[in-house]
Amino acid sequence: SGLVLVKNPHLDLMEEDILYHLDLGTKTHNLPAMFGDIKFVCVGGSPKRMRAFAQFMQRELGLAGAGEDVADICAGSDRYAMYRAGPVLSISHGMGIPSISIMLHELIKLLHHAKCRDVTIIRIGTSGGLGIEPGSVVITDTAVDSSFQPRFEQVVLDDVVVRSTELDKDLAEELLACSRDIPDFPTLIGHTMCTYDFYEGQGRLDGALCSFSNEKKLEYLRRAYDAGVRNIEMESTAFAALCGLCGLKGESCPFHLL
Amino acid sequence: SGLVLVKNPHLDLMEEDILYHLDLGTKTHNLPAMFGDIKFVCVGGSPKRMRAFAQFMQRELGLAGAGEDVADICAGSDRYAMYRAGPVLSISHGMGIPSISIMLHELIKLLHHAKCRDVTIIRIGTSGGLGIEPGSVVITDTAVDSSFQPRFEQVVLDDVVVRSTELDKDLAEELLACSRDIPDFPTLIGHTMCTYDFYEGQGRLDGALCSFSNEKKLEYLRRAYDAGVRNIEMESTAFAALCGLCGLKGESCPFHLL
Repeated sequence: SGLVLVKNPHLDLMEEDILYHLDLGTKTHNLPAMFGDIKFVCVGGSPKRMRAFAQFMQRELGLAGAGEDVADICAGSDRYAMYRAGPVLSISHGMGIPSISIMLHELIKLLHHAKCRDVTIIRIGTSGGLGIEPGSVVITDTAVDSSFQPRFEQVVLDDVVVRSTELDKDLAEELLACSRDIPDFPTLIGHTMCTYDFYEGQGRLDGALCSFSNEKKLEYLRRAYDAGVRNIEMESTAFAALCGLCGLKGESCPFHLL
Repeated sequence: SGLVLVKNPHLDLMEEDILYHLDLGTKTHNLPAMFGDIKFVCVGGSPKRMRAFAQFMQRELGLAGAGEDVADICAGSDRYAMYRAGPVLSISHGMGIPSISIMLHELIKLLHHAKCRDVTIIRIGTSGGLGIEPGSVVITDTAVDSSFQPRFEQVVLDDVVVRSTELDKDLAEELLACSRDIPDFPTLIGHTMCTYDFYEGQGRLDGALCSFSNEKKLEYLRRAYDAGVRNIEMESTAFAALCGLCGLKGESCPFHLL
């Protein structure tokens, strides 16, 4: 049916669903009227960048009001920022798996309550590249963990549940085809490694703590490259797992920050 | 010596240290002049609340400019917000362990470069209470993981390193004594449980996914209570581990959101 799936039998029994961190709710807002026609959701870490992206989309789509300011739909909350430009929603998710997970749970419920159909979600944040040209966009075929495995280990109460991190291969090919129409726009398909830590977790030598040598770091990153990893960030495994389970056609294509 | 410790031999070899997510650096800013007299750092998730806290501290300390606006020291970055009121620094950390870890790495380096001495750091964010009165402040004696163990498992490259999550017991008692001077201010000392997920990880029945029954959730939360857990949040184990390793006298005392 193309509807977004919510896999929670308890939700139907609730009189009101409050999306706390988005400052929206089923009783306080008419979610089908506000969001029913959304077809694309683009997400990234930084609120300012997601605002700039919504303004860019307004211009690209030739929408009324293009060039003017855009209103933050979640202005009542300072956890995330949300903007819309026609059928495109642009939302920030902060940094790391716990932060993007809270946003995705509430976004998925939002799209469900709004009865949206055939929604595509794309993560367009930043990442660190691995053996690729700065400024490259990596379209993720599979998100992998720090052991290069295509899995997201989620702690549910005190059980560990392992979830798949496959992304939409057709969408990946479609995005790669789009990039070919733009000159000087280095784009590739590869694995994206997702870590829980920016400094020690990504082999950086400039954190407040660092217990490994440069040689050990290089050996680790070489193994990651050999396993197919082309960039490193902090959200892709949770993004792939949650979108996959809830029937959202999803793709992660962060760019390697210059 | 009371100095903040940085445990990274590579840092001394760097010509410049850029604190990317704070938009500060050793070449672009005179960190000892800006921060050398800081004695307290208070951290919490929400940028707006940390701004309000800085304004509150300005009034409480009777500082010049009290009642006026405070400037965001990290205004060039939208990852975190930082304000100061006399010897007190007030910083937001976003939601979850990865987000607070990035901030703490850069804050610890900041205090190190600024040659700060005898700094006390207190997390004052929000939490969910467990069998306690809404509005209570829980002063954490030990931060525990979702198996109620006092440990922070940190992935360093592809190794798992286990770190202690003890907090400063004298500081906890001192804060508890302060609370006794204020009427109607419910405060207690207890264990704080730190999870990686807000919905499934904390046994909430209102996420986009929920695979457990209400009975299973209640049984888990009862076991947590019996293990000494009095509140649940998403940052305390990383906070305790990083502050402990770097010689920062730290305490976590989030309040149970009403």
